[in-house]
Amino acid sequence: MGQDRLIFGAAYYEEYMPYDRLEQDMELMAAAGLNTIRIAESTWSVEEPRPGEYDFSHVDRVIDAAARHGISVIVGTPTYAVPAWLVKLDPGVLAVTRDGPGKYGPRQIMDITNPTYLRYAEGVIRALVSRTAKRPNVVGFQIDNETKHYGTAGPRVLARFRKWMAARFGTVQAMNEALGLAYWSNTVADFDDLPDPTGTINGSYACEFAIFQRELAAEFLRWQADIVSEYKRPDQFISNNLDFDWRSIAPAGQQGGYAHGIQPGIDHYDAAKCLTLVGTDVYCPSQDGLTGMEIAFAGDEMRPLGGGRYYVAETQAQGIPEVTPYPGQLRLMVYSHLASGARGVMYWHWASLHTGPENWFKGILGHDLTPGPVYEEVQRVGQELPRLAAPLAGLRKKNRAALIVSVEALTALGWFPPDNGLGYNDIVLWLYRAAYELNIECDILYAREEDWSGYDLLLIPALYTADYPFIHRVRDFVKAGGTVLATFRSFTADAHARIYHGALPHELTDLFGMRWSQVTRPVDVTVDGAPASHWMELLECAGAEAAAKYEHKYWGRYAAVTSHSFGGGRAWYVGTMVPGETLKPYLLRAAADAGLDLPKERFPVIVRQGVNGAGKAVRFLLNFSGGRQTAHADGTDLLTGERFAPGAAVPLEPWGARILEEN
Amino acid sequence: MGQDRLIFGAAYYEEYMPYDRLEQDMELMAAAGLNTIRIAESTWSVEEPRPGEYDFSHVDRVIDAAARHGISVIVGTPTYAVPAWLVKLDPGVLAVTRDGPGKYGPRQIMDITNPTYLRYAEGVIRALVSRTAKRPNVVGFQIDNETKHYGTAGPRVLARFRKWMAARFGTVQAMNEALGLAYWSNTVADFDDLPDPTGTINGSYACEFAIFQRELAAEFLRWQADIVSEYKRPDQFISNNLDFDWRSIAPAGQQGGYAHGIQPGIDHYDAAKCLTLVGTDVYCPSQDGLTGMEIAFAGDEMRPLGGGRYYVAETQAQGIPEVTPYPGQLRLMVYSHLASGARGVMYWHWASLHTGPENWFKGILGHDLTPGPVYEEVQRVGQELPRLAAPLAGLRKKNRAALIVSVEALTALGWFPPDNGLGYNDIVLWLYRAAYELNIECDILYAREEDWSGYDLLLIPALYTADYPFIHRVRDFVKAGGTVLATFRSFTADAHARIYHGALPHELTDLFGMRWSQVTRPVDVTVDGAPASHWMELLECAGAEAAAKYEHKYWGRYAAVTSHSFGGGRAWYVGTMVPGETLKPYLLRAAADAGLDLPKERFPVIVRQGVNGAGKAVRFLLNFSGGRQTAHADGTDLLTGERFAPGAAVPLEPWGARILEEN
Amino acid sequence: MGQDRLIFGAAYYEEYMPYDRLEQDMELMAAAGLNTIRIAESTWSVEEPRPGEYDFSHVDRVIDAAARHGISVIVGTPTYAVPAWLVKLDPGVLAVTRDGPGKYGPRQIMDITNPTYLRYAEGVIRALVSRTAKRPNVVGFQIDNETKHYGTAGPRVLARFRKWMAARFGTVQAMNEALGLAYWSNTVADFDDLPDPTGTINGSYACEFAIFQRELAAEFLRWQADIVSEYKRPDQFISNNLDFDWRSIAPAGQQGGYAHGIQPGIDHYDAAKCLTLVGTDVYCPSQDGLTGMEIAFAGDEMRPLGGGRYYVAETQAQGIPEVTPYPGQLRLMVYSHLASGARGVMYWHWASLHTGPENWFKGILGHDLTPGPVYEEVQRVGQELPRLAAPLAGLRKKNRAALIVSVEALTALGWFPPDNGLGYNDIVLWLYRAAYELNIECDILYAREEDWSGYDLLLIPALYTADYPFIHRVRDFVKAGGTVLATFRSFTADAHARIYHGALPHELTDLFGMRWSQVTRPVDVTVDGAPASHWMELLECAGAEAAAKYEHKYWGRYAAVTSHSFGGGRAWYVGTMVPGETLKPYLLRAAADAGLDLPKERFPVIVRQGVNGAGKAVRFLLNFSGGRQTAHADGTDLLTGERFAPGAAVPLEPWGARILEEN
Repeated sequence: MGQDRLIFGAAYYEEYMPYDRLEQDMELMAAAGLNTIRIAESTWSVEEPRPGEYDFSHVDRVIDAAARHGISVIVGTPTYAVPAWLVKLDPGVLAVTRDGPGKYGPRQIMDITNPTYLRYAEGVIRALVSRTAKRPNVVGFQIDNETKHYGTAGPRVLARFRKWMAARFGTVQAMNEALGLAYWSNTVADFDDLPDPTGTINGSYACEFAIFQRELAAEFLRWQADIVSEYKRPDQFISNNLDFDWRSIAPAGQQGGYAHGIQPGIDHYDAAKCLTLVGTDVYCPSQDGLTGMEIAFAGDEMRPLGGGRYYVAETQAQGIPEVTPYPGQLRLMVYSHLASGARGVMYWHWASLHTGPENWFKGILGHDLTPGPVYEEVQRVGQELPRLAAPLAGLRKKNRAALIVSVEALTALGWFPPDNGLGYNDIVLWLYRAAYELNIECDILYAREEDWSGYDLLLIPALYTADYPFIHRVRDFVKAGGTVLATFRSFTADAHARIYHGALPHELTDLFGMRWSQVTRPVDVTVDGAPASHWMELLECAGAEAAAKYEHKYWGRYAAVTSHSFGGGRAWYVGTMVPGETLKPYLLRAAADAGLDLPKERFPVIVRQGVNGAGKAVRFLLNFSGGRQTAHADGTDLLTGERFAPGAAVPLEPWGARILEEN
Repeated sequence: MGQDRLIFGAAYYEEYMPYDRLEQDMELMAAAGLNTIRIAESTWSVEEPRPGEYDFSHVDRVIDAAARHGISVIVGTPTYAVPAWLVKLDPGVLAVTRDGPGKYGPRQIMDITNPTYLRYAEGVIRALVSRTAKRPNVVGFQIDNETKHYGTAGPRVLARFRKWMAARFGTVQAMNEALGLAYWSNTVADFDDLPDPTGTINGSYACEFAIFQRELAAEFLRWQADIVSEYKRPDQFISNNLDFDWRSIAPAGQQGGYAHGIQPGIDHYDAAKCLTLVGTDVYCPSQDGLTGMEIAFAGDEMRPLGGGRYYVAETQAQGIPEVTPYPGQLRLMVYSHLASGARGVMYWHWASLHTGPENWFKGILGHDLTPGPVYEEVQRVGQELPRLAAPLAGLRKKNRAALIVSVEALTALGWFPPDNGLGYNDIVLWLYRAAYELNIECDILYAREEDWSGYDLLLIPALYTADYPFIHRVRDFVKAGGTVLATFRSFTADAHARIYHGALPHELTDLFGMRWSQVTRPVDVTVDGAPASHWMELLECAGAEAAAKYEHKYWGRYAAVTSHSFGGGRAWYVGTMVPGETLKPYLLRAAADAGLDLPKERFPVIVRQGVNGAGKAVRFLLNFSGGRQTAHADGTDLLTGERFAPGAAVPLEPWGARILEEN
Repeated sequence: MGQDRLIFGAAYYEEYMPYDRLEQDMELMAAAGLNTIRIAESTWSVEEPRPGEYDFSHVDRVIDAAARHGISVIVGTPTYAVPAWLVKLDPGVLAVTRDGPGKYGPRQIMDITNPTYLRYAEGVIRALVSRTAKRPNVVGFQIDNETKHYGTAGPRVLARFRKWMAARFGTVQAMNEALGLAYWSNTVADFDDLPDPTGTINGSYACEFAIFQRELAAEFLRWQADIVSEYKRPDQFISNNLDFDWRSIAPAGQQGGYAHGIQPGIDHYDAAKCLTLVGTDVYCPSQDGLTGMEIAFAGDEMRPLGGGRYYVAETQAQGIPEVTPYPGQLRLMVYSHLASGARGVMYWHWASLHTGPENWFKGILGHDLTPGPVYEEVQRVGQELPRLAAPLAGLRKKNRAALIVSVEALTALGWFPPDNGLGYNDIVLWLYRAAYELNIECDILYAREEDWSGYDLLLIPALYTADYPFIHRVRDFVKAGGTVLATFRSFTADAHARIYHGALPHELTDLFGMRWSQVTRPVDVTVDGAPASHWMELLECAGAEAAAKYEHKYWGRYAAVTSHSFGGGRAWYVGTMVPGETLKPYLLRAAADAGLDLPKERFPVIVRQGVNGAGKAVRFLLNFSGGRQTAHADGTDLLTGERFAPGAAVPLEPWGARILEEN
């Protein structure tokens, strides 16, 4: 694991299999070049059928069998899906949420602060980890699964929240004022009088509660990490499969969709700290919707969180019918992950299931449990990967651009949405996608991250809640020569989602050479001939160049895009949403301002780069189209051995991928 | 009743009338040729205004008046709409459902297993039936009304369910495995630990509960039938108005819509067993939406359930504004019912109501309670029907085609839907409608029906849950020379909705000469140039002819429709949804394979046939269009007396109907 | 206040301000010509931070400062938004509604009959009013805010309702019959058995409950008025800001929309009686959606309720992004209000807020709290208004047309909707807008209003619940020479929403020379070539002229619009919904029948008229378009001093307004 081989594997559930085919599965895996499985994270009720009675026979058998086939195992703690007996024992195990008490059935329905839950969770974690940590082929642990706070908001949680608020604000006066609770008579004279925030109409108060809830989730992960650390070997990692906001594409009531921007239910920036190997779950559109954007976004977020390292704990094989891959696409997806710096890829999951809510979320094998086209493509990749392990060892990416995200801004814009159907993540991805398609590689940084050294270009989409430290960092960055491109809805409110009462963009009107006070919906408004949509700030230049103006009978005197030189750098501001193609020229100008040296290729040819352990540049050339494409790059194809001289035309197959190492 | 005259009548509610007009109503009915009314099923609170205090004065008066006018009466037990006092006496009378406890107000809100409910229901049934069974003009009883399980799922129901599960599976191990409860930690170690299935995410578990709930409904009907049997005369029938799945077309919150496939809330196959005359409620689109399909479907389902006999207990007269009939349509609808073998037709309802939630669901009379265009058309039919009673006596239909339905498949596909907005009944009706429009008359058989003798063609839409006995019957049928046409989503899962782990179509790959493993959504996919939609199985021929292939850049190598000779017969499989016109050629080929001799007419001319008691063929020629049409048939028009020689052109008026008896 | 100056001002919330800028705000207001503020109505928790501990420091400070700048103050009682401590003290303060118990957070969530609520409300009202009534610049009180019943339906409310029903109907028999409770077994034998009406399916029963709930709201206002009357000076008024039904246009979950027809949650006709100055809140579309219709409607409803006087307590300044005004529109809106007879206009609100759910519902000042384009336009109006105070003093409007509305019909049609997406208010506004655009000025009268003297034309849209007194008044009105134009869904049901059982339009078939019994949906139906929609009554002429017939293959024999001479007058009936342009010719014919002398102008030029205290005609010429327009009128422009001779062309600027006084 780690440097010696690239992780390639799948989640494996012997518990779900309709008959004993463990040996057969291991053989098929080995034949496909899969070297790792993840087990045990979903079946607490099998591992502990009655309170305190453990049965790890499946776990043992699978580890044994894997060992026989040279397959590594990641053991997951089974705490995200609780047994029926646990809820029967203490109904308080179910989280009380905004919607009231829950019903037993789904996963991720528990109150992660409930003492009964924690007691039994601790029991099964200790039993499982103490047993498996000794096994040589167990390479690491996944603590819990796609962890979030699940909206927990019952009485005990609220009591803790009131204490947390008291500690945070000191006095009720300070809190009342910071959150604007006077509105509609919501002030309190005592922290104990704070009402259930799930009923509130005060977005600032609600945002505080969301922060608190996310802290509970991170705390829960730390708690698990601490327990696992008591048992694990130094060479075993601790991971969690961090996932994303989600856009569902399956029929109503069914599981299935894809990653869509940053995760609101836990703060990745906090959560990643207790992990020794960041893992992530990335699902993405496929067929004609496969653009690689979701894969790149995931990697660009995870890599900085993991200090340059992460792996893909889950991604689709066949997936739901909506994403059954075209030939070549699965392979392209794997290399796209590696292009982002992933240390490997695991499928969810090995075999299509015959029951349960995800039985049409298909694995590498179909329901007939025999190899089919998808197995065959996985096998092709499995045979190629060993050739890549050495040249990709120690691969590091050094991006000069960063895109700034904030889960606080996400929550706040959920309360103060720019428009129906346009959320924070939509704006983030709109900007990210434009950069991605121009092959401007970005790291994705959380706004709390203070280290911006090495970056020349910052992209700041919809950073609604911008506190003073952040504002000052932006100022310093541009003053020192950096280039910033920010969008509408940025620099508007403070950390409590309270709109600043000075001119906007707050404390940055000199930097942007612009201010705005009025806002409206774009109706029959264009920018460079293309329709503006959703939200438009009426930008008034005060020093800035109006790079674009609104085209409209009344709003034509306001700028839509501004550009301003400030200190040694330059600041761009985009006041409305325009089509990606309209945005791109401004992004290119900002990239040029920042001195970025971009590949000439544009989407559907994606070029992503890094430097390997040997210090050689590695270039991934990815073709996200069903047609043949040509890229221009030099180096040696690590898979075919072809050598391309500088300036050579490198042909790319439909949905093809090449990895070139510097000659 | 029965052979001597065709039932023609209406539901009648003296209780709802704004003033005493009983005599006037009876006169108007008699003048219109109505010979039957149904009474009493909706007004328990009038019949028992306080616990144990009965007042049947309306019932008595109406039976008396009807008798004076030669009108027969069907008495309904008033158990589907409970009085307020009953719920006040025991709030547990209200069913606890997936949505929690209910509120008093609507009909069909009770827990049909509640002892208080059953005690008072029994009381009013006994009082009503014992009183009315003696009356000569009472020809039968309707037990309850459009009976279903109403989602009852309270604690007592769950306790019974757990016992039922224990009896069904024997051991928890067997149950855990059969239902795949290991998924997300849902296994239990004791049947008593089984959680409330209304919260489950396990479709197999939910399907078991639905089966159990439907059994409760059938049991409730049997219980009523047994009570009625203690009192009724041998010549009096026991009926229930079985109804269908429902598509609403009224404004939100209003009643109104039409029958749309088989009923999920009770299993007709079970429920019909305690009835001596199957009744059914059929509502259908009208105006330009009148195709007769819903009428034919209802008849084709009810006739086999009733052993060749059934009657229409309710159908619309004026109905809601959406279905106000064009001139001629009401008459056409009546003959369409008779063409399916109905022994008569009753309207819901005699007079438009002035209050209540169905006051814009109009009857034969409008709110002014005087004859209008609809009364006049009803009267025309009422005057024609006596001429038909003798020639239609003993009418039997002998269809050589059957279409197989399954309420278990319906429930399962509700959990594993082919697509948003496409349910089981949509697929059933898609296939049924194509057959109907080609004048391929089918019996509709429940999958549990074992007797397929007499059939040469089986149509099998979306039979997702196909157990081994069924699979074997299909095999035997084709081997013996029969023709089968099955569609996507058939032969996929077992009786517990667990997907089979062998190749699909399960245990029938040799029969179909085809297997499939991959499935996707059709996007830009055509079949014979027409768009495929919703779901496509990628069929791989293994012996079968690819009668049609998918037209698509990647999926073009897979078949969309396959045809395969097996044993003495032939098996067709349609892997995706295509427009009806694209489906029809394959259906015609299958009908030809089966040796069916079809009329040359096509929709909008519908031809339906039977053999009357005198052994003569009777042919119904129905014109579902606003234009004149011509059919080709011989025989004597039973209404006009016209004789048509073989090959004669028989003219049909707009929305016209003729009934020809073999010369 | 009153005759001496026109009210011009804004709601002002010092409690919400991020820093002390009271003096600055007062200066900015005075500079803009604002002369009135409304305060205190939203912040009970600030005024009474703990039970019984009052803190009116904000109130005092603001009244002091206002006094210094010659600004009048309206003090609002803060009872519509309850403090958290009050709900903690007695959770029963929260209304139990159809949706169950509420959660603390929003405004207007309390049970207005709860004793604890009333006790503390009384306390704060007495403390606030007794303190402020003495202040010279306090000109009046607003009791509560946009008061409604908030759906209160808890056990105590239901107990009162049962008593109310007993008093209303006398016997259960009478009630059962009047409401048609027999339907689906809903009759009761005792008023105490009446079930919770929030669960009912009986629209008549539900309508009774709505009437009862509205009476609670009016009673609550009277109760507050009585308390305030104990303290207020004779020159101080009592007001409430009556508002309207609402169409939301903001993103989901956000506040923002516009007035859309009459208010269902309180009966304005009752509620206005305890007010000495009727106030109203009017929000309307803006930008290209600004037509002035909502403003005119509000005025035309309020003016009769207030005996010819009313003022606008709230209207938008910048408002939500959807309604950011074009240049000139705010000024046009003010003059539109005055054109309806308003004694002044107050903005909601002075300054954009930085927190709370309405922080993007912007005031006169933006978030930067400095003057911008909107302040500047307000200032222009503020500088013009003093010139108008004298000539507009005592302005009276004498409309010869009235449009009849009924909140009972609104509730009833909510239960028996003409169509999805078409409610009572849609029909009211469809007819009102057609009249408005033709410059047919109407008073809007509640159906209970008995005095129709002075009117020559009555417009009666969808008056579903028409009782006998009303029917008789209509008959007398036409007999005496009046003209009536009624629409579909009128004269259908009695006061209990029970459909009449005689011919329709009930007891008026001779008056209209027409009856109808059948109704349907218009599909491919036109009237004068334009599509009919939603609902069509098939009108059968019996004496009336078929002014228009339905154009359709089957319904062509029925009339769509009828006209009939009766007594000395004429009665028109429109049986379906047609585009406004199709309706207008008939409306013009009815206006001609009534002898109305209409301006020649048509929308977008709106002409509204009155007679001022000096007995001179005053004519408002309003241009609701972005182009220049010309009107024809004579008189002197009160703002520019220009004199126009009879027949002169008066030019109107884009979104311009002129006020001409008779020479």
